[in-house]
Amino acid sequence: MFITVEGIEGVGKSTNLAFIRSCLEAQGREVVMTREPGGTALGEEIREILLAHRHDGMAADAELLLMFAARAEHISRVITPALKRGAAVLCDRFTDATYAYQGGGRGIEARRIAVLEDWVQGTLRPDLTLLLDVSVETGLRRAGQRDVADRFEKEQQAFFERVRACYLQRAAREPGRFRIIDAARPLAEVQARIAGVLAQYGERRCDE
Amino acid sequence: MFITVEGIEGVGKSTNLAFIRSCLEAQGREVVMTREPGGTALGEEIREILLAHRHDGMAADAELLLMFAARAEHISRVITPALKRGAAVLCDRFTDATYAYQGGGRGIEARRIAVLEDWVQGTLRPDLTLLLDVSVETGLRRAGQRDVADRFEKEQQAFFERVRACYLQRAAREPGRFRIIDAARPLAEVQARIAGVLAQYGERRCDE
Repeated sequence: MFITVEGIEGVGKSTNLAFIRSCLEAQGREVVMTREPGGTALGEEIREILLAHRHDGMAADAELLLMFAARAEHISRVITPALKRGAAVLCDRFTDATYAYQGGGRGIEARRIAVLEDWVQGTLRPDLTLLLDVSVETGLRRAGQRDVADRFEKEQQAFFERVRACYLQRAAREPGRFRIIDAARPLAEVQARIAGVLAQYGERRCDE
Repeated sequence: MFITVEGIEGVGKSTNLAFIRSCLEAQGREVVMTREPGGTALGEEIREILLAHRHDGMAADAELLLMFAARAEHISRVITPALKRGAAVLCDRFTDATYAYQGGGRGIEARRIAVLEDWVQGTLRPDLTLLLDVSVETGLRRAGQRDVADRFEKEQQAFFERVRACYLQRAAREPGRFRIIDAARPLAEVQARIAGVLAQYGERRCDE
């Protein structure tokens, strides 16, 4: 059971990830919560490089390869071993974020990303992806309340509009895997919806 | 004019790179001397990660993607701009080293490396590659005289035998691009041979 949570800045990923974890644990599952880019010692070093202002202007291809390098390590050390022993893996962003940020945002062609996705992941894909969705205006306003804007958060509004559009497009194309959560609603409503999705998803798996 | 210098540890790359630079400059060329992994601020950070003992046991795919991330930045910032303005680029290791170390050495399939080579480089390939060749025994004995063995240098002899075999195999397959230099000979002889190769190569280019 490989669950990913996606969305632009300010959608409330951290709060809702903690909630999802609680739901899964309440179902009696071992939960491995992790994040991308990062999730391993190497991945966290790569994450630091990716977010550092000293690398503003990094070649887009280099950025993409770094993302996938972190992902390769993450899959090898964390995700695959956890899935093999039957744990639920709950991951804060995964390859959909690469399509959204590096593809939709920075303009790398989706087919070039797909080459690396296949190269690194083989057939591994998330079973369920929760897309927390708010308007860019709302997201950026919420994210702006945090102290330090990192390299990605400082990008322009138009960039995030492209990122959001790419996420929504991917969700529309893969309705079996994606659930879109309206994260502009009050937190209690958002979490009720998430709990419903997880319960439904758990039942569907039991039926299979 | 894109020239790469390859070889296992201890073949005398540093000394001979300086010599090659002098030869090219004596021909009146602007020479951009660079190295892989590295050659840019980002690349040097990646190089540090690749050589650090704290990452012993890194997933082989992650290592390969880091190499190509450094290469993408290097091509974008250094190699392509230099070639475009007509400079000679002299690079201490390039993609042949990836085939030799990650392919021959660590067992990643050549066809998987080729996917990334095409993805990152498009049609860019070196015009001339000097393979400095010595036996593994000689190379390791020479390299051992240096103070600190990095992660790659601490690998076993069998590893370097596979690396060397892969280099020689690649040279045999692409005789138009490769020149094998017997680097076990006295330095004066090695450099006379290098000077001869460069002179011949310069003439060939003038004839074209």
